[in-house]
Amino acid sequence: MPIDPQSPIEIVTLDWVPDFARGYVRDYRVRWALEEAGIGYRTDPISTLRRPASHFAEQPFGQVPAYREGPVRMFESGAIVLHVAERSEALLPSDPAERARALCWMFAALNSIEPMLMELTNVDLFAKGEEWATLRRPSLAAAIDKRLGQLATALGDRDYLEGRFTAGDLLMASALRALDHTDLLDAHPVLAAYQQRCLARPGFVAATGAQLAELKTEMPEAA
Amino acid sequence: MPIDPQSPIEIVTLDWVPDFARGYVRDYRVRWALEEAGIGYRTDPISTLRRPASHFAEQPFGQVPAYREGPVRMFESGAIVLHVAERSEALLPSDPAERARALCWMFAALNSIEPMLMELTNVDLFAKGEEWATLRRPSLAAAIDKRLGQLATALGDRDYLEGRFTAGDLLMASALRALDHTDLLDAHPVLAAYQQRCLARPGFVAATGAQLAELKTEMPEAA
Repeated sequence: MPIDPQSPIEIVTLDWVPDFARGYVRDYRVRWALEEAGIGYRTDPISTLRRPASHFAEQPFGQVPAYREGPVRMFESGAIVLHVAERSEALLPSDPAERARALCWMFAALNSIEPMLMELTNVDLFAKGEEWATLRRPSLAAAIDKRLGQLATALGDRDYLEGRFTAGDLLMASALRALDHTDLLDAHPVLAAYQQRCLARPGFVAATGAQLAELKTEMPEAA
Repeated sequence: MPIDPQSPIEIVTLDWVPDFARGYVRDYRVRWALEEAGIGYRTDPISTLRRPASHFAEQPFGQVPAYREGPVRMFESGAIVLHVAERSEALLPSDPAERARALCWMFAALNSIEPMLMELTNVDLFAKGEEWATLRRPSLAAAIDKRLGQLATALGDRDYLEGRFTAGDLLMASALRALDHTDLLDAHPVLAAYQQRCLARPGFVAATGAQLAELKTEMPEAA
């Protein structure tokens, strides 16, 4: 679904990010969900370098995305993805037992997989070269490898975590992107293939493409 | 709601944990939700030291809780709390805009607050004395302090994050318990009071009490 200037749904995004974050800013997760659900949206990019004070009333941590839809005001990409998923069988099955499984994987992605990967991003990028980061990396990489092995076992030979694509796969594949700068997925070919399968979906391609098309390529003046 | 041996809801728990984890094993979050919702449950404690291989089919990471309810099989305490909350106005308002806000805080607790606190638990407990942990702690504590300040601002002078108690508060107060071994909440009295308010609720007291009553106090023989 292309961007629709008439949509009642508005996503708050950033106007610019450094190169390493292009295509990774979390509004792509919400765009992806909307693409899978076939729901149009428009965006409201705010200044990355001078975030308006009012933004913190919408997003307590000053991040993006935030989401506006009439009286509904949301933050946290996981919550927004769930909100979108609830109106689309393509993301959240209506069968109660199947729906419950999709919820499990959504939360597993964000609370059992992503926290370790966030820590690795900090170790490898933001704290790169700091002594603690260098010392920490081996045990962290080992913990991640163990957890990925458990995830690969759970996936087995299925295309998606519960056979068919759900919002759980959307968030899991999104979380795993934090490993893109590493070779940690290579030890788990079944997961690497799963990740590729998810990211080859037209919805992901359209979502990240739309983010890249909107982001300014040159750093705006901060003043 | 006391434990009900006839309940169709069964929670998989552990039979024993070391002292520092007593009252903190994540099944208390699900018990708490069920207490708030007034729904009975029974438990199926598995051996902590010899987890049955079959458990990994229910919980891919070998953790607890898992949840059984007829054809519904779940893992991830956050997902299970949401599943329970969906049948109780006490945890999840039916008004769409209010419901969306509760979802935001549920995900914020688990993806924007808890990951930092998990890292601190590792630094202070599991990796205590390791050089990287000692070196890492100051920057981590500073990042947590900043995030807590943002959370305190969002809470403001309300009793709960959206005025009335929801599943968002249940998970937020649960996440903040990872700071119990520190004084990091002291710098944010509004949050410390919020935390106390949540944990004084009869549902939390009953939930942790039930966990403690069921856990063996002596380490079972592993063989």
